[in-house]
Amino acid sequence: MPTGVRIEATPDQLDAIAFNADGLVPVITQDATSRDILMMAWMNADSLRMTFAEGRMVYWSRSRRELWRKGDTSGDRQFVREAYYDCDGDTLLFLVDQEGRGACHTGAPTCFFRRFGDRLPGDPGGAG
Amino acid sequence: MPTGVRIEATPDQLDAIAFNADGLVPVITQDATSRDILMMAWMNADSLRMTFAEGRMVYWSRSRRELWRKGDTSGDRQFVREAYYDCDGDTLLFLVDQEGRGACHTGAPTCFFRRFGDRLPGDPGGAG
Repeated sequence: MPTGVRIEATPDQLDAIAFNADGLVPVITQDATSRDILMMAWMNADSLRMTFAEGRMVYWSRSRRELWRKGDTSGDRQFVREAYYDCDGDTLLFLVDQEGRGACHTGAPTCFFRRFGDRLPGDPGGAG
Repeated sequence: MPTGVRIEATPDQLDAIAFNADGLVPVITQDATSRDILMMAWMNADSLRMTFAEGRMVYWSRSRRELWRKGDTSGDRQFVREAYYDCDGDTLLFLVDQEGRGACHTGAPTCFFRRFGDRLPGDPGGAG
């Protein structure tokens, strides 16, 4: 059974997190192996605490206004490997092992599957 | 002289971007080579247009309330390689070549240089 890393953040680290006026902080989720960006979502203090305690990604759904234990419905859970916070504490970065088909509700491995411009990935650089 | 890729986004792609109530969209900036996450910042429609046109990252500074042509002051410019938008169009992802010391105003290569928990990068997994 897959498991994630339970993280014991120090009081100083928790104090450094700058939640916004809605009590939320944006979270970038990156695949620990492929290093692809899987998604960006939000956490409140409760969902962050659950994520650290369980080693599984738990977000706050702004549309549904409820805790969102990623994969409870889809089966595509995310297991924590490492977690970082940025220089001004207002964005978090989690490296995870992605279970199942992928992170996106469309079934795509990553939510960032649409590229700007007409050229395809792997095309040489230059004016678009 | 380093240059970035100028991107010609299609009208459909531009229409798919969901700016928030403040007219901003969060942008994840990833190093195209190391695949490290360098920073998270914000763009408005103007800064996005300039970024596409110049092939250089131009953000909107929420604290200074002005366009922020990354590297104009520090010299640490970011040159665009690829750009993506996510499934619901409310987050952008840019892959860039980072110039100079790095992305962070502290002088660090990435803004995400602080890790939660007591263990060091490279330590084996397990409870923190």
